[in-house]
Amino acid sequence: MATKLRVGSGVDFHQLVEGRDFWLGGVKVPHIKGALGHSDADVLLHAICDALLGALGLGDIGLHFPDTSNEFKNIDSKILLARVMELIKKEGYQVVNVDSTLCLQAPKIKPYVPVMQQTIADILGVSVKEVSIKATTTEELGFVGREEGVVAYATALLEGC
Amino acid sequence: MATKLRVGSGVDFHQLVEGRDFWLGGVKVPHIKGALGHSDADVLLHAICDALLGALGLGDIGLHFPDTSNEFKNIDSKILLARVMELIKKEGYQVVNVDSTLCLQAPKIKPYVPVMQQTIADILGVSVKEVSIKATTTEELGFVGREEGVVAYATALLEGC
Amino acid sequence: MATKLRVGSGVDFHQLVEGRDFWLGGVKVPHIKGALGHSDADVLLHAICDALLGALGLGDIGLHFPDTSNEFKNIDSKILLARVMELIKKEGYQVVNVDSTLCLQAPKIKPYVPVMQQTIADILGVSVKEVSIKATTTEELGFVGREEGVVAYATALLEGC
Repeated sequence: MATKLRVGSGVDFHQLVEGRDFWLGGVKVPHIKGALGHSDADVLLHAICDALLGALGLGDIGLHFPDTSNEFKNIDSKILLARVMELIKKEGYQVVNVDSTLCLQAPKIKPYVPVMQQTIADILGVSVKEVSIKATTTEELGFVGREEGVVAYATALLEGC
Repeated sequence: MATKLRVGSGVDFHQLVEGRDFWLGGVKVPHIKGALGHSDADVLLHAICDALLGALGLGDIGLHFPDTSNEFKNIDSKILLARVMELIKKEGYQVVNVDSTLCLQAPKIKPYVPVMQQTIADILGVSVKEVSIKATTTEELGFVGREEGVVAYATALLEGC
Repeated sequence: MATKLRVGSGVDFHQLVEGRDFWLGGVKVPHIKGALGHSDADVLLHAICDALLGALGLGDIGLHFPDTSNEFKNIDSKILLARVMELIKKEGYQVVNVDSTLCLQAPKIKPYVPVMQQTIADILGVSVKEVSIKATTTEELGFVGREEGVVAYATALLEGC
């Protein structure tokens, strides 16, 4: 194969429940509910982790950070993303760009997007322009529309050094 | 980064209701229901808009064409896609190819796909071959299966000029 | 367009029912339910087929292998993937890499992933490293969470020879 480019994609799901902080893209977003999970349940960072791992055939987030391990209990997912980047670099690759979409009915996340982008860009070693975070409701459809859960999709392009 | 390629992905959701035209890929598809939305609610064009914007970190369709603005009330989404392409060109990029999938239980859209492809290709400035429109039911599962809604996914590859 | 790269994406859905074998990634996975469909209903191979077809604008799996044709009744989806690869080669393209995600609540598929990867890599003519298979539950949300169905997403990067 001539090209040193690889494409990856990730999707992640979490329930929304009262009494949990709502971490999205490395930022704590004020809301009446938060995402339930073993770690901080940051659905956006998890989808990005999976897109990066998947591009290089390195398994998935469940393989590297099992939710049965105490080591990852309530862990900040920024640490997980940083560990994933170490694996990517060890393979001789760097991130070209990441695009992502958060599917959630509420709250509006637009005010937090710039900080999320900067946070993720710093970990990935790219500029803010290469970290896209989009958001959409599901128009009240399904479990996202009923505010029972949140979904994130991510796509990544990597390049061998 | 050596490569001038960027990858983007989009997903969009709309409710299906009686009394609305059903716009898909810039074409009015005969059906007993249509998609509900502020614009013409063309779920396929919206997903493609988001994939293009996302590839270059230009925000999302909700940022550029807010559903609170009268300017976009019932607007033809082909106009939105054309505006997105202006932004892409202004950044010095062009479209390599777009792939998309419509998830809907009914109707069968195969007869309309060639016109959709041509319509989108003309706006993007690429050949019909570079605009893929696929379709699938959800095998009667979920809100798509109950014909309460429609979902579209799109992926785009862009190249810097 | 200077680049000979193309990106594609696919998504597929199947109901889970008792009394059917559960084919995933070309492997029969022991489970109390299996996927319902006209062919062997291998949701992962179908999503990969669609990602490959979509990258080159060759239509979708429903166009090439209609579920109204007796020819494809209970067919092994590995045969369908092999036919898709013939189309890809005929266009002068080869696979760079494929990334995929299986969304299912049960069973755990990790033990079967290496065989799935090898099976798919052999058909695509790439190394195991270029075929990523990730898995996630939906955290009990929606029809996947209720074990009524299974979803697969796939992304592919192709390169012109």
